Amino acid sequence: MDQIRNGWFSEISNLWPGQCFSLKVKEVLYKDKSDFQDIMVFESTNNGTTLVLDGIIQCTQKDEFSYQEMITFIPLCAHPKPEKVLIVGGGDGGVAREVHKHPLVKKFVQVEIDEKVVTASKKYLPFLAKGYNSPKLTLNICDGFEFMKNHKNEFDVIITDSSDPIGPAANLFTESYFRLLKDALKPNGIICSQGGSVWSDLNQIKQTINSCKKHFSTVRFATSSVPSYPDGHIGYVVATLDENLDLTKPSFKFSEKQIEELELKYYNDEIHAAAFVLPNFVKNVLYK
Amino acid sequence: MDQIRNGWFSEISNLWPGQCFSLKVKEVLYKDKSDFQDIMVFESTNNGTTLVLDGIIQCTQKDEFSYQEMITFIPLCAHPKPEKVLIVGGGDGGVAREVHKHPLVKKFVQVEIDEKVVTASKKYLPFLAKGYNSPKLTLNICDGFEFMKNHKNEFDVIITDSSDPIGPAANLFTESYFRLLKDALKPNGIICSQGGSVWSDLNQIKQTINSCKKHFSTVRFATSSVPSYPDGHIGYVVATLDENLDLTKPSFKFSEKQIEELELKYYNDEIHAAAFVLPNFVKNVLYK
Repeated sequence: MDQIRNGWFSEISNLWPGQCFSLKVKEVLYKDKSDFQDIMVFESTNNGTTLVLDGIIQCTQKDEFSYQEMITFIPLCAHPKPEKVLIVGGGDGGVAREVHKHPLVKKFVQVEIDEKVVTASKKYLPFLAKGYNSPKLTLNICDGFEFMKNHKNEFDVIITDSSDPIGPAANLFTESYFRLLKDALKPNGIICSQGGSVWSDLNQIKQTINSCKKHFSTVRFATSSVPSYPDGHIGYVVATLDENLDLTKPSFKFSEKQIEELELKYYNDEIHAAAFVLPNFVKNVLYK
Repeated sequence: MDQIRNGWFSEISNLWPGQCFSLKVKEVLYKDKSDFQDIMVFESTNNGTTLVLDGIIQCTQKDEFSYQEMITFIPLCAHPKPEKVLIVGGGDGGVAREVHKHPLVKKFVQVEIDEKVVTASKKYLPFLAKGYNSPKLTLNICDGFEFMKNHKNEFDVIITDSSDPIGPAANLFTESYFRLLKDALKPNGIICSQGGSVWSDLNQIKQTINSCKKHFSTVRFATSSVPSYPDGHIGYVVATLDENLDLTKPSFKFSEKQIEELELKYYNDEIHAAAFVLPNFVKNVLYK
């Protein structure tokens, strides 16, 4: 189906039947098919440059900071010493941009399976791809599963910045993936994965959390507001091997000066804690 | 413009240019034009029955509880003794449904300008309109402005459940309205008004808060997730005449048993506090 009609891009998907978010298109900047997925970048009339993979919006320039900052700083700031970090996915570079900002991170590795996303982002989404300029970063174009099989007991934090659980990212929500994450982590490590919408995917989230719980003693769920994602928000599955760590309380707090200098537009230590507070209909399914 | 095309209702508005939320329509149940606005009720394929006023979604059966519970229980639970409550607007009956649940409320009054909304809701949206069955409620079909001119120093809490600041609700965001609210409140009273989206309306919210501040010593802003509202969330302007009251801390807390028996699907005392925690880009505009 052609997703651009009469100048509007419409995100119709079986993942959220009967509802649809649309953005007005100014100009399509890039359109290609990689070995893994369809890639499109367009300039929208009011939300800036927008990245679409397999017909689903990955980020718009207007609101991407909410997702990038929250998926990064929730696990990084919950960890007392996040010196070495792994990013799985995140081909646009936005998570790398945020990981680079954390003062305690000494080096980080990113594994992205689709080089064409990286190349497109560098050309069309420089506000995200500037993450690739970090001298602390090693970028590997390869499969995250394969990479982690050869990297055990190595990372303090692993962030999985994936698309939704269909297509190339489907494996990143399974028990075997959480097993690999556990083995690639150092003791007391923390993981954070994109977790879907409580309004459309609550049963899927419950399954993901149950898969995660088989390997992690503490699993929590957080959310943030991202208007261009389905239901206008997104969840994060956060887990740790450290039974004594309270993931909802940041170990590291950015000062007001750091928030300004590092251009943190969404994350602060109060929002870290508040993100874990869930409505009753979500708590009842996920935690009872 | 016809907002239903090829079986989809699309919410296009100048209030959020370049973006649009759509719902798939199963059947249009009601369509009429009152003295104040266009009214439509349709059954959607996946989000239940939906009320639309002047082309803008007011509530869908799937997610309305987030808005109704939060706009009601934030002010009611922040107040130590909310015995008498006024609802301005709220023609669908959803806020009345929630106000009725609060154990400390002895009586409440609702003033709605458009009787046709009340009638349509009673017929097509009984899950909302059941609020009208409350023996504690007196419903007046009249203009909220006129009503408050004749009711001074009378209410502990006033909830303004309005549509967006265009059309019949435009006056409900002005300084003169906040003046009327102040005069209709008892000392130490609390108000809560629908406040728009931080992603699309931040300057409008800032103006509303500034208008409110001219008459209220303490003004705060909270949000909750509502997927069918623009940007998937909505804000609440909450204010009090009591300088010593912390609006972010509930004076009254529902027990787990009450939450279950009263069917609170969204609100709890933790989410009350968390709703006031704002991202940096919002704090910087509203509070600096």
